[in-house]
Amino acid sequence: MRYLIAGAGPAGSLLACYLAARGHRVDVFERRPDPRRGDDEEGRSINLGLSARGVLALERAGLMDRVRPLTVPMRGRVVHAAGRTSFHPYGTHDEEILHSVLRRDLVTLLIDHAHGLGARFHFGRRVTDLDRQAPAVQVEGEWIHGDAVVGADGAFSTIRTHLHRGLRADHHQEFLPWGYKELTMIATPGFRLEALHVWPGGDGLIVAHPNRDNSLTATLFLPYDELEAITDPEAFFAGRFPDALPLLPDLAKEFAANPVGHLVSVRTTPWHHENKVVLIGDACHAVYPFYGQGMNSALEDCLLLDASLDSFAAFETARRPHTDVLDELSRENFVELRQRVASPMHAARKRADLLLARLLPGRWRPLYTMISHTTTPYADALARARKQEAFLRWGAAAVTAGLGLAALTKLAGRNTGHAHRSR
Amino acid sequence: MRYLIAGAGPAGSLLACYLAARGHRVDVFERRPDPRRGDDEEGRSINLGLSARGVLALERAGLMDRVRPLTVPMRGRVVHAAGRTSFHPYGTHDEEILHSVLRRDLVTLLIDHAHGLGARFHFGRRVTDLDRQAPAVQVEGEWIHGDAVVGADGAFSTIRTHLHRGLRADHHQEFLPWGYKELTMIATPGFRLEALHVWPGGDGLIVAHPNRDNSLTATLFLPYDELEAITDPEAFFAGRFPDALPLLPDLAKEFAANPVGHLVSVRTTPWHHENKVVLIGDACHAVYPFYGQGMNSALEDCLLLDASLDSFAAFETARRPHTDVLDELSRENFVELRQRVASPMHAARKRADLLLARLLPGRWRPLYTMISHTTTPYADALARARKQEAFLRWGAAAVTAGLGLAALTKLAGRNTGHAHRSR
Repeated sequence: MRYLIAGAGPAGSLLACYLAARGHRVDVFERRPDPRRGDDEEGRSINLGLSARGVLALERAGLMDRVRPLTVPMRGRVVHAAGRTSFHPYGTHDEEILHSVLRRDLVTLLIDHAHGLGARFHFGRRVTDLDRQAPAVQVEGEWIHGDAVVGADGAFSTIRTHLHRGLRADHHQEFLPWGYKELTMIATPGFRLEALHVWPGGDGLIVAHPNRDNSLTATLFLPYDELEAITDPEAFFAGRFPDALPLLPDLAKEFAANPVGHLVSVRTTPWHHENKVVLIGDACHAVYPFYGQGMNSALEDCLLLDASLDSFAAFETARRPHTDVLDELSRENFVELRQRVASPMHAARKRADLLLARLLPGRWRPLYTMISHTTTPYADALARARKQEAFLRWGAAAVTAGLGLAALTKLAGRNTGHAHRSR
Repeated sequence: MRYLIAGAGPAGSLLACYLAARGHRVDVFERRPDPRRGDDEEGRSINLGLSARGVLALERAGLMDRVRPLTVPMRGRVVHAAGRTSFHPYGTHDEEILHSVLRRDLVTLLIDHAHGLGARFHFGRRVTDLDRQAPAVQVEGEWIHGDAVVGADGAFSTIRTHLHRGLRADHHQEFLPWGYKELTMIATPGFRLEALHVWPGGDGLIVAHPNRDNSLTATLFLPYDELEAITDPEAFFAGRFPDALPLLPDLAKEFAANPVGHLVSVRTTPWHHENKVVLIGDACHAVYPFYGQGMNSALEDCLLLDASLDSFAAFETARRPHTDVLDELSRENFVELRQRVASPMHAARKRADLLLARLLPGRWRPLYTMISHTTTPYADALARARKQEAFLRWGAAAVTAGLGLAALTKLAGRNTGHAHRSR
């Protein structure tokens, strides 16, 4: 079989590994230049949090041992609020951690590995059209035929546009009215590096991932109008995120030089045409980044599609309900990160959740744990979390009712006793 | 000013009337042939229900006197269920009626009128690209420049696609899993022509509009899989809609010949670029047809845009919240038409609604009345309907509480009386 893949990001490159390992002929077309040649990948997130789903997908390709040295473990979340920091571990076990990795390091490894297995990469070559029936892709005016085409070409997928042409395609695309800007932080002495750092700030938010060189990649999320109104970044940080300011040595220069990133969410269908064309990753389910699952779900797609190469329809049918749930969760987590993360109630609930997980090992799993530290399908994880919550409410009601009943019994006993005595 | 309009449907043609009447230079590009030359407009609804919003927009263009003779009044809804028919008037006043009109009759009148005012129509000429900054449209490889471009080119608007290119555009496009087929009904003796006819049928539905020649245009809505499974239309109707069968003399032939129509809903933003490009009608808010407001809202757009030609931004800001509400209402009404319309409870509620409207003239207005027989903006109508419902619930609660209080007072009185007597 000859597979034509559009897009050499994490999803396209990992799928190339899987397909090449099965002995298929694989060609990957990527409009950007070869990331191994060190050109900048403008407009993309440079730092990512790898969690259980991504780890499993990389393990299956036999790559995790080579990925691990490229990562920095993140053992929990450090929340910076009101001049103080608090640490919230991600889980109850040592394995329940995230791994911070540079996008370029990961993609480079994947491309090298796929290349070693015989996949061919064509950089700087943009797919401009698709013949879904052939199937074939047009690259610089030339039609290239294959047995199947994979669209791994991101949230604004060209493959998807042409796949959907003339079909009854549902498509939901939404931009958050928040933009983001990436900035480099340098850890000061005593700064806890092995964690994800969060500065909640009302309608704004900073999230920072650690790198291996004592730096962190920080992302400032802010409503567009506020972001565009910043003329003096140092004054802005001094006012809104004062404890982040000392960590940003190049703030003014980077703020001026770095572009404003956009946050888009995409839900869409169909993902496939017969067994000829299929979409993976952001091309079929782009999510807001606030659950840290965008890349992880894309890598998981590769694993699931690899098990369903004989039926793209089965892949879509099984997978789409789960990525739809991920879309919801990613929206909700933005509110959580911006606002609730700093509240004592939220911290108490998180602690109670982890305590229950310790008391009921294997039976109580916080939603965040299931999403980030297991490969339980997203919708199943949400359903289970809802059951747990119902159980908790029921339990609380039962305890309340029990206490009430006990009080009543006591009262009744007293009355009965009194009655007896009065006889 | 020179306006370039893409699309010569009801919205594009009416806007051409308005703009030409203001003395602007107007060019309308339409990819289909001239409807006045009698070629079939494939894939479009051939019969429409004109209501208050559309009527007002046509009146403002001075056209209603010429439109009225083309219409058939629909004074209410006839529901056909279980071998019986029931008539439900649309309102409490004689003016609260709908007007059934053939799409081609209306569009022909609008084009003739706009043409008489100096607008130029270019049929069989497809707009293939937009330069939103110029602004200019590409037609058959030639760039045509104007002062403003209007996209009135329907749910799959080319103007919209190019308007949104590279912008942070939100776009929600959804197909119902129901298709439709249009069929010709011939009224049998005694058949009430001046009404909209509805055959509810679980997951299927027939809606029929009367024409001036004793025929009706019937639309069968059915889930795709069921629609595609029909091999013998007469057997299907005999089983599912037996009382519609005698009205369909050409059923087998028409069923085979007529294409399956699709139902798409579109919510999107932005609708405009500076004061250079603007969308109207289905191009920016396509709705399911079940509230009968698709064309009416498009004609109303013309009226509102005509009052806001100096600010396309103001037009979008003021209008979009209302068409978003219309989208919701149109979805909900599909369930109502298919399922609830045949239930006695629903009929009773409708009657109670009209009764309240008669008892509280000008103060109680059923939602359907506000949407179809007034020009109250859609979201305002919904907000008012919700207030009325809350009032009704509060009223019911007050009545219940009052009755309870009365009973209690009576009881207390009795007890007190008894106490007095016992003293």
